[in-house]
Amino acid sequence: MKILGIDPGLDRTGWAVVTNNSAKQPVLLASGLIHTPAKMPLEKRLAAIYDELTEIILQHSPTEAAIEEVFFSKRADTQANTTHARGVILLACEKQNLKINGYNPKIIKKTVSGNGLAQKPQMQRMVQLMLRLDSVLKPDDTADAAAAALCHLRLGPYNELMKKTQEKMRCLRISAGK
Amino acid sequence: MKILGIDPGLDRTGWAVVTNNSAKQPVLLASGLIHTPAKMPLEKRLAAIYDELTEIILQHSPTEAAIEEVFFSKRADTQANTTHARGVILLACEKQNLKINGYNPKIIKKTVSGNGLAQKPQMQRMVQLMLRLDSVLKPDDTADAAAAALCHLRLGPYNELMKKTQEKMRCLRISAGK
Repeated sequence: MKILGIDPGLDRTGWAVVTNNSAKQPVLLASGLIHTPAKMPLEKRLAAIYDELTEIILQHSPTEAAIEEVFFSKRADTQANTTHARGVILLACEKQNLKINGYNPKIIKKTVSGNGLAQKPQMQRMVQLMLRLDSVLKPDDTADAAAAALCHLRLGPYNELMKKTQEKMRCLRISAGK
Repeated sequence: MKILGIDPGLDRTGWAVVTNNSAKQPVLLASGLIHTPAKMPLEKRLAAIYDELTEIILQHSPTEAAIEEVFFSKRADTQANTTHARGVILLACEKQNLKINGYNPKIIKKTVSGNGLAQKPQMQRMVQLMLRLDSVLKPDDTADAAAAALCHLRLGPYNELMKKTQEKMRCLRISAGK
């Protein structure tokens, strides 16, 4: 499973491609930042994010995406910007047939560091440790994207199992006429 | 000027193509609704909106878009859904080289009905009168889209003039060394 982790933003969208090596350890294959200048009109910034992300997907061929959900306590205008960007990010992943998984920021923190309220430096350090990097991954947005990918690497198999179980339960309920 | 008015939504995106006839009266050329079912995953709903809107643009060849801005007092989840949809709507218009104009819902109401707090029936009736239709435009989302287009048909020339004046002022300030 090759995962594209994404931390969406209109100004800065962090991305990181993570996979498991033969010893089942997570490995960072590539990472980076998509930046769009604030003075560009909104629609041109969205097109730049869409085009650059499509390019990244074509270059690294991930099969799944782990995308951070928008945090609702952000300022209304920041939240709107991020959600506009997240719309075109989801579209770029869907158009390239990636399986898409959205994760709440708290779930990512809890899964990666054991603490749903972990601060940025703690998360960066955990990402560094898990990926066995010489230094913390910079900039922050890239480390957040890698954290989303690591979260999915850990939770993905359980999500699948849970979906299959739910589907089985649904079929059983239907066949029992409930 | 052929304008595509859009009232964005994840469930329902209304659209209407409006232009001026030779007597400078606004005319409705086409209108409709893009609907995506709630049980579809978010990314597939966004792709459906993007594809259907692109198809509409290719079919009717508008040169400009007037897109309602997201109203911030909506419920947080509705607001997030609408903003995700608005992201891919802006992208579809940008990819087809439309000139994009965002309008606050209050400005649309004020411009079309003279009252920034006009209720839905009042707006629908004004849209019907301005477009000389036999009955009110249905569904509501389509009438809202037509109102955005009518608003731009009226304000567009002033916006252009204002932008040019601002640019001229900026150049004058630069040449005066301020």
